[in-house]
Formats: sequence, C-alpha cells, structure tokens
Amino acid sequence: MELYAEGGFDNTTVAEIAERAGLTERTFFRYFADKREVLFAGARELEDLMTDAVTAAPAAATPVEAAAAGLQAAAELLEERRDFARQRQAIILANAELRERELNKLSSLSAALGDALRQRRVSDATATLTGEIAVAVFKTAFQLWVHDSDQRTFPELIRESLEQLTALTHA
Amino acid sequence: MELYAEGGFDNTTVAEIAERAGLTERTFFRYFADKREVLFAGARELEDLMTDAVTAAPAAATPVEAAAAGLQAAAELLEERRDFARQRQAIILANAELRERELNKLSSLSAALGDALRQRRVSDATATLTGEIAVAVFKTAFQLWVHDSDQRTFPELIRESLEQLTALTHA
Repeated sequence: MELYAEGGFDNTTVAEIAERAGLTERTFFRYFADKREVLFAGARELEDLMTDAVTAAPAAATPVEAAAAGLQAAAELLEERRDFARQRQAIILANAELRERELNKLSSLSAALGDALRQRRVSDATATLTGEIAVAVFKTAFQLWVHDSDQRTFPELIRESLEQLTALTHA
Repeated sequence: MELYAEGGFDNTTVAEIAERAGLTERTFFRYFADKREVLFAGARELEDLMTDAVTAAPAAATPVEAAAAGLQAAAELLEERRDFARQRQAIILANAELRERELNKLSSLSAALGDALRQRRVSDATATLTGEIAVAVFKTAFQLWVHDSDQRTFPELIRESLEQLTALTHA
C-alpha cells in the first residue's frame, strides 16, 4: 500500500511489495493472485459481512431495511480503517485498470446482496433492484466519506444517504 | 456484431470485421479505437440523449422525475433496437474484459446524469445519489428486458422499476 502510494501502482513490482512485507515472491503469490489483488483482498470479507447482516436482519425488516443492515455493518468496519481506505481509494482512482476491478467488485456486491435478499423470500425483481440501490447508496456515501473535509463518520453518511433516498422518492 | 456472435469476441479479428463491413482496416480504425469500441459506439450517444432529457425536464420536476425523463428517453431508443441489444448483451456477458468496459460506461453514465442534475441546481450529494440510483433502475429494468420471456417493453419496465423504487422506500 505504502509503495503504491509512493511510487504509483504501475511502477511498483511484486518483488518490492514482497520485500517490504518480508515475504519471498513465491510466498506472495501463495496469498495473492497478482499485485492488483493486494488492494482487493478485503472485498470478499466485506461482501460476506454485508450479506450475513442482510440474512440476520429481523424477519419483519423490509428489503431496504435488511439491505441497510448490510450497509451499516460495512460502514462500521470501514470506519475503523479510514486512513487505509482513503489511501487505497487514491491509488485506485489513479489507475484505469484498478478502477475497473473496483467496479467489478461493486457489481458482484450488488448481485450478492440481491441473492441474500432472495433468500429472505424477497421477489426476484425487488431483490435485484434493492441490491443495486444499496450499492448506489454505498458508493455515494463512500465518496463523501473519503473526500469529506468534515468529520462525519461512514455510518452517519450511510444513514444520511438512506434518508435522502427516501426523501427523493417522496417529493 | 454477427461475427462476434458467430465466432466469439476473442476469435474475431479486426480484419474480419472490416471485411464484413466493407471497410479497410485503416478505415476501421478511423471510426473505432479498437475492436471493443464497436460494441460501445452507441454508449456516448445514449448518454447524451439521457443528459439532454434531464436538462429539458420541466423546471418543476424533482431530481428523480428529471432522471426518469432521461431513463425514458433511453428506453424508447433501445426499444427500437431490442434484437441488437440482446445480441450485444450476450456477447458482453461472455467476455470479462467487455463486462468491465460495460461497467465503466455505466459508471460514466451515472456521473454524467449527476452533472446534468447539478446544472439544474440540485445539491451535490443529491445529484450524485440520484445519478447512481437512476443507473440502478436502468440496470435492473435492462436485465429484465433482455432476458424477459414476456413481452413488456423497456419503457414499461423502466416505469415499473421506478414505481418499485418508490414502493421500496415507503414500506
């Protein structure tokens, strides 16, 4: 991470990353498929955390409430890693390939949330839409959080975006 | 397009595409940056059509209503090209690189819709969120439209997804 921030993603070799981490290149590749994967290693963990929270939401929760539980779980985890998240985001934004991989992960996230909702017997079309909307809320709040000069936390920004979502469709 | 569907995207060369279209390779590259771009040549046109519709929405329209005008404009255009859109989607889904480029175009679309809303003096955070949500609605309706065995039109599916969005946040 530090190396990407210092020298740029393209200029950093796997050998350098492995050295900084005290690993051999061979060990590095045992953990990560390629050097891009270092930045996305947490994505699966985050996705599981979110889908688990959707599954664990009370039976009476609406689809949006269940999705919101997933968003809050993610926001609480990421809030503890704000500096890391900001640094990571700057590296990703500077590299087209990394931006594409990030979009891929977000697309997989909305599909996973949709699946978790389907398991709650939410209808197919509603589950798909709610999964997409949850990621729309996530992206919007995330952008504010990593760029924000004020000190709102990620969970606060998620709540605000969800309130805004409701307000938008009630005008 | 036909060639991609027949032989697969990876197995089709620019020479073959140019020949089928009655162009030299040189002329081909005057129109398209690479062979991927053939599939995305209409994306910019669609984006402009949508942002123009957002801009042209009545002054009294809410952000979501203005975004909905953009979605309807796109849906009407695409409805006339359903076979093309289905064939194109099958090619894109079969190729990871093309899926990434598609996600990129959708991300650029949500940013463009957000910008068009900002020009209507919608606040920054609301514009970002509405742009993201509009694309969430678009993606959901699009998936139904290209796979749907029933005969609903794309404009109808967009209206349904928008109604569903409202219903979701009123539960």
